Amino acid sequence: MRHLDTIENLTTVEIEELIDSASSFKSGRYANYSTKHVALMFFENSTRTRFSFECAINRLGAHPYIFDISKSSNQKGETIKDTINNLCAIGINTFVIRTKEEDLIDKLKQIDFYKPVHFINAGKGKSSHPTQALLDYFTMLEKIKTVKNKKVVIIGDIKHSRVAKSNIALLKKFGANIITTAPEYFKEDINGAFFEPDLKKALDGADVVMALRIQNERLDEAISKEDFIKNYSLNMENFPKNAILMHPGPVNRDVEISSELLDSKIGITILNQAENGVYIRMAVIDKILKGQLK
Amino acid sequence: MRHLDTIENLTTVEIEELIDSASSFKSGRYANYSTKHVALMFFENSTRTRFSFECAINRLGAHPYIFDISKSSNQKGETIKDTINNLCAIGINTFVIRTKEEDLIDKLKQIDFYKPVHFINAGKGKSSHPTQALLDYFTMLEKIKTVKNKKVVIIGDIKHSRVAKSNIALLKKFGANIITTAPEYFKEDINGAFFEPDLKKALDGADVVMALRIQNERLDEAISKEDFIKNYSLNMENFPKNAILMHPGPVNRDVEISSELLDSKIGITILNQAENGVYIRMAVIDKILKGQLK
Amino acid sequence: MRHLDTIENLTTVEIEELIDSASSFKSGRYANYSTKHVALMFFENSTRTRFSFECAINRLGAHPYIFDISKSSNQKGETIKDTINNLCAIGINTFVIRTKEEDLIDKLKQIDFYKPVHFINAGKGKSSHPTQALLDYFTMLEKIKTVKNKKVVIIGDIKHSRVAKSNIALLKKFGANIITTAPEYFKEDINGAFFEPDLKKALDGADVVMALRIQNERLDEAISKEDFIKNYSLNMENFPKNAILMHPGPVNRDVEISSELLDSKIGITILNQAENGVYIRMAVIDKILKGQLK
Repeated sequence: MRHLDTIENLTTVEIEELIDSASSFKSGRYANYSTKHVALMFFENSTRTRFSFECAINRLGAHPYIFDISKSSNQKGETIKDTINNLCAIGINTFVIRTKEEDLIDKLKQIDFYKPVHFINAGKGKSSHPTQALLDYFTMLEKIKTVKNKKVVIIGDIKHSRVAKSNIALLKKFGANIITTAPEYFKEDINGAFFEPDLKKALDGADVVMALRIQNERLDEAISKEDFIKNYSLNMENFPKNAILMHPGPVNRDVEISSELLDSKIGITILNQAENGVYIRMAVIDKILKGQLK
Repeated sequence: MRHLDTIENLTTVEIEELIDSASSFKSGRYANYSTKHVALMFFENSTRTRFSFECAINRLGAHPYIFDISKSSNQKGETIKDTINNLCAIGINTFVIRTKEEDLIDKLKQIDFYKPVHFINAGKGKSSHPTQALLDYFTMLEKIKTVKNKKVVIIGDIKHSRVAKSNIALLKKFGANIITTAPEYFKEDINGAFFEPDLKKALDGADVVMALRIQNERLDEAISKEDFIKNYSLNMENFPKNAILMHPGPVNRDVEISSELLDSKIGITILNQAENGVYIRMAVIDKILKGQLK
Repeated sequence: MRHLDTIENLTTVEIEELIDSASSFKSGRYANYSTKHVALMFFENSTRTRFSFECAINRLGAHPYIFDISKSSNQKGETIKDTINNLCAIGINTFVIRTKEEDLIDKLKQIDFYKPVHFINAGKGKSSHPTQALLDYFTMLEKIKTVKNKKVVIIGDIKHSRVAKSNIALLKKFGANIITTAPEYFKEDINGAFFEPDLKKALDGADVVMALRIQNERLDEAISKEDFIKNYSLNMENFPKNAILMHPGPVNRDVEISSELLDSKIGITILNQAENGVYIRMAVIDKILKGQLK
């Protein structure tokens, strides 16, 4: 049984192997898993991550199964253990899961299912989103070769962001100088990152600037949208020269990033991230199906 | 035009051929129906039966089409005859149908469609669920070689259960000694089965014990859940030695079967049923597409 | 960047090439676009057009992606430009779009996306539905060889019908004599067609009779259903000898066309239309992916 649960569980060697594999898929490497069946269990809505995995599965020649939670037997009160046991009996052995529950995948990993199964974390709770961190790292390497001693600034809702947590977990393994910046309400101290409340100071000399998605419903409960934009929005004026701009998407235009900056050449990296995501997900599924991930 | 509507319509030879075919698919037989298109029309929610058919279709190399009733032209008042005529014109010639309506498939079979079409009953009303009975029989044969003169006990909501009806129809063709047991409200006299109200007597010397799913909403209208559990729930104490335990799933844990029994080695047969279901469905679709089923 | 937006944008040579290509797919021509990914973005419900495109994509060996609007990031306030940019980064480069918005595809065509993308209009607003017009023309050619100087009568809700508009745009390119007939409320003067309020006069000597779908909710606001049926419904009595009967479907039985006429041999052409639709859509996608459509 092999899974991708968190970045923390991966060694630097495993991460490098995944990046190399993604890179070779991007260069046209071919695979044919036509006897493999992969379920997409998204307990939270998602367009981009779901389509990215679905596309990765199709490119690998495998079969995707869209598990529509609202129509499933879970409505009939079935436990998720019984659901997965049934699906693995049917022949689906890989489960891509997005969930609000922090400990769901951990619990599932402990269970001795009817047949060996693989779990891939496609975003859980506020703590981790490993394929996003991997695709972000892949994109950084394409642009700046290495993150060692490079200044990576992460901006916005650090507290609720699984993207921030997984990126920090990965970047600190590779020796990056990680700075977080956020309004007080969105602040969280994370091991390996240094907090700087002032955006201007944080951005000074940055190599990578990663804006996080702000959930609109959180903005007005904690800080006014106007205040956030005034103090933490990226634009043509405050964006550091020669840095690369990243965002997990979807961007709230003119909130995290001005439309002008987003639509400039600088904004293109955000689409490179999306493009690279498919190759990372192909690499993860490929490695899991080969039994190479612990 | 060839269909799978009910067990009653199949000869024992046809059933044996389907079991042999399923068995060879389980052993790795390959098929490639890449020019075939199969619609899944589920007018009732179902996770397991739908995914089982979807997986069977993919393994056969054919293309599944998920017909989402709530978004279809049926909402625009189109008759199902016109819908199917249109879909068969498009190139979908096999229809897997789950419906509450007892006579829908019968009616459809009478219609002269634009092109030849096949109907597969994936569960209709309270009367029949032939692929379930076939996969149950396949599983019994794997475990006990033959059902002839074997004691098969079916427990629970006999009255509303299409699983019970199709199993009895099949098992009596092959000479099983069939016993049903249920509270008065769930009782129904079915030709070929003997009713025994007392669970203990029913279970005595059983070779196969099949619990049926109880719909929770039915329990409290007819009999209290506590009374049902007290008198008809299977557990480590009352389960007969050497018998095999079956259930169509999903199980209401601690209602039809205690969690302890379900999670013991004895419970594994229920997952064997699910596993065998895919191969039975492959065999049914294969036989239908070859025009071998009447 | 190449699209199929409107019939008006196609030359007669391009239309003839599409018909020839559809015809060769109908005769068994094979294609394998297994590295191509096509999104179906249906902002309005549709069974037949959606399944027709999905089936065409599968037959071409490509991968369909069903974009469920209600679950997408559009709910999170993402613009459609950003959504499509993201999807084309992922590797989906062809977008089949059905929408109420008249100018959506026009706007999308102006945008410089991250990667080259193709748009296929699967029905927009009240103005155009080019694949329907192409499949209708394909069907007419099969039946009556040419439309030049042939009388084509279009009946019903001309005003709100994109089917009517695209058919007229196409038929006038090929020299048909086009007559529209409708109650006053559904009338619209369209360049290239002659309006005749009296059904009997309109039908006199017709070669092709095309009834349009009436949306029930429109009937009682504008004209009583009884009046419409009395004056504009087609039946065994008023249907012109030797004409062919067409309808885009789904038919409101006994409103636009009597059940008796629909279920007679004359009604079969409506299913020929549906059958031909798949081949037309294969031809359109094939031509677009080859970069042959402007």
